[in-house]
Order: sequence, then C-alpha cells, then structure tokens
Amino acid sequence: MTNAVLLVAHGSRREASNDEVRALTERLAQQAQGHFGTIRCGFLELAEPSIPDGIDALIADGAERVVVLPYFLSAGRHVAEDIPGILGDCRSRHPSVQIVTAPYLGQSEEVVPLLLSLAARRTEQTGSRT
Amino acid sequence: MTNAVLLVAHGSRREASNDEVRALTERLAQQAQGHFGTIRCGFLELAEPSIPDGIDALIADGAERVVVLPYFLSAGRHVAEDIPGILGDCRSRHPSVQIVTAPYLGQSEEVVPLLLSLAARRTEQTGSRT
Repeated sequence: MTNAVLLVAHGSRREASNDEVRALTERLAQQAQGHFGTIRCGFLELAEPSIPDGIDALIADGAERVVVLPYFLSAGRHVAEDIPGILGDCRSRHPSVQIVTAPYLGQSEEVVPLLLSLAARRTEQTGSRT
Repeated sequence: MTNAVLLVAHGSRREASNDEVRALTERLAQQAQGHFGTIRCGFLELAEPSIPDGIDALIADGAERVVVLPYFLSAGRHVAEDIPGILGDCRSRHPSVQIVTAPYLGQSEEVVPLLLSLAARRTEQTGSRT
C-alpha cells in the first residue's frame, strides 16, 4: 500500500509563515527516505494548496492511504471540528483511499524532551556566566 | 547559576487550550529532573499568567537565568516583535537576571523526525490493509 502524508497547517496572512510550512514539508520529504510515497502540505485557510487540493494531489501521485498530520499545538476548533469535517468530504470523494489522522503535534509526548533540549542547549550556549 | 524556564504560549479564548499549555508545563517540570530550578508558563495574551508575571514568579523562586521557550510554530509578529519587546521590559526591571530566548518550537530541526514518527506510528496502527 502506498502511504502518503499531508502536513496540515492553519495558513497565515503572512506569506513567510506559509513558506516555513512549505520548507518543513520539503525537509519531511527528504528525511522520510522512501518511507512514504509523497509528502505534501495543505492549509486550512489563507494559503494554498487547500487540504482537499493537497489530498487530491497525493492521490494523483498514487497514494492509497493518506496520513494527515495536523501541525497544530492545541486541540481547538480547527483540530476538533474543521479538519475532520473537510476530511469527511474528501473520504466521500475518494472512497477507495484510506484517509487517517495522526495526533496533532502538541499532543505528542515527544514535544516534552524536544522543548527541554531546546532550553538546555540555550543554557549551554550562554555558558555559566552572566 | 540557577536556571529557570518560561514556556511562552499565545493564549486562547478557549480555556482548554490554555490548560493544555499548563499541563505541558507540568510535564516539562517533571521530566526536567532538576536540570532547571523552576519551569513555569506565561501567555502573550488572553490567559494568565502574563509573560512578565511568569518571569517575576521565576525570579521570586530564585532564578538567576531565565530561558524563554516560545511555544510557537512560525516566526510571526508575536515571535519576532511582541515577545522580544516584553522581554526587553523585563530585563529593564531585573537587570541582574539573565533573560535569554531559545528557538521557537517550529524552528527546531527535531520537529522533522518527530512529525515523521507520528505519521509512521499512525501507519503502523492502521496496518497494511484498508
């Protein structure tokens, strides 16, 4: 089964923020090293491609299963309602494709050691003197 | 030197999102295991404590250096301007305390393997059948 990933971000009026998401998507694709067929991004609003357009593109690439990765820090309305609603519509349009959702980033337990390592490195850079 | 950490989040009208940040702060404190004196959170807006109140509390706890961890995914105005401005005021009020800022979460290269592992685990859970 060909697995693909859609990184889903909110989208911003600030194009540099959208470009950060696009650059992250490229790094994901580079580091995935064949683990997934294709990795693309999709934006909930304010930027392109939309989530449905991103999923359509992954399916055009040959995806048989799409893992949606919500790039969000909290389980607000977007994660709890808006994205599931959009994915429901996508499933109706593509009944032969499996569309599943991974935990949103802020829900991952691995965020804890990541944050601690960011803080520890900043402390080391600063040294022990004020 | 006693190092402390302030996890800085945006703050939300949805109190459950603020509680997610508070719970994350507790997990950081548990997993830090004495690496940092105290770990607290501070919100840019819409929730308490504010960033200055959080820093004041850390200093009251005995912090000589505060590492600020921006819990943000992109370098928007909040990360680039608002937080540095608030921290500048805090430095003026506490000239003997070192207040430094770590990279924001979305800037960390470690986000890439974290996201890939979330996607891979979701694929494994789903199995190879549709």
